[in-house]
Amino acid sequence: MSAPVPARSGSRAEAQRARILEAARRCFSERGFHGAGMAAIAETAGVSQGLIYRYFASKAEIIREITDSQREGRNEVLGRLADCGELVDLLLEAIDARRRGSGAPVEFDPALFLEVSAEATRDPDIAAMVSSQEQDMQADFAALVARTAAAKGRTLDPRALQQRTMLLRCLIDGVVVYAIRDPAADRAELRAALQDGLVALGL
Amino acid sequence: MSAPVPARSGSRAEAQRARILEAARRCFSERGFHGAGMAAIAETAGVSQGLIYRYFASKAEIIREITDSQREGRNEVLGRLADCGELVDLLLEAIDARRRGSGAPVEFDPALFLEVSAEATRDPDIAAMVSSQEQDMQADFAALVARTAAAKGRTLDPRALQQRTMLLRCLIDGVVVYAIRDPAADRAELRAALQDGLVALGL
Repeated sequence: MSAPVPARSGSRAEAQRARILEAARRCFSERGFHGAGMAAIAETAGVSQGLIYRYFASKAEIIREITDSQREGRNEVLGRLADCGELVDLLLEAIDARRRGSGAPVEFDPALFLEVSAEATRDPDIAAMVSSQEQDMQADFAALVARTAAAKGRTLDPRALQQRTMLLRCLIDGVVVYAIRDPAADRAELRAALQDGLVALGL
Repeated sequence: MSAPVPARSGSRAEAQRARILEAARRCFSERGFHGAGMAAIAETAGVSQGLIYRYFASKAEIIREITDSQREGRNEVLGRLADCGELVDLLLEAIDARRRGSGAPVEFDPALFLEVSAEATRDPDIAAMVSSQEQDMQADFAALVARTAAAKGRTLDPRALQQRTMLLRCLIDGVVVYAIRDPAADRAELRAALQDGLVALGL
């Protein structure tokens, strides 16, 4: 096995990369972004730390790959939604599923989302990654806002679209925090408040 | 010094407690909730880990004390605000000050807020603490919502007050996340969107 075997080693490399990413995802989810070190990720993946560094220069690179890969899944979910109201319902369900331990959908891990956001205030690499992903997010959610408006027979000029997308983003990011912090909050009331709020905001 | 001197040792104990809390606050802020272990807190405070455990059973207890103590400061700030609009402006300023490294006001550390919220999905002690603090927060912010309505000559029935307070909480928690994630987002546009949004929501 000292001679390189490109095809085989290529697929083996891909499998190893995927195994490391899956292990990292699990570690981050269970222990938090800070709590999961390279040693824990290596142990979970059943590989050496040295091998991990052959694929990823840092934890920041691992988290970039994980969150980048979530974009496709997120867009598929967003594309299935009729309007912003359905997004809020879906989000509440995902958060509550996570609280019950029945596992968040792979597209979105609320706790990791908050931790990586927090880390952006400290780590310039994470900040740059998060900020560049925000451009994509803004575009992806703007499409949903435009679709919601169209479904109600409205057309939004670019500035109105931008502002409503900002409001939607603030509101749903806030739902993540609020629903996590207060699992005892009456879900029917919260849902009703949010749906009324979306209507009031023209979303 | 073998005989106990209640008064002096009392004040010494208080000073030690305060020093540990201040060190913990600094460590959490610089390294994140997970990144700051008891060893780092002890080193920063210039005391032994054993001494910390004499005052606090766990990191969860330290964070409870820190966030509990922030309530008074928060209420003082909330009490000075004329309406919800001023709250949003204040929050954006605090987040941007933190990004510039000019330090968040002691009442509120956005990164720590997000990390502790995330940890509530994993640690039952943290979850219980956060959830009980949410009851206070809901009451404190409801007072601002009621004051804002009164300033506009409106009275809110209990359900409307509860729902608008939920919406305000979601919106401002979301502003924290959004403004941290996208420091490049046009602040004037974000501010305008939020102020228009508050009006639309009757806040």
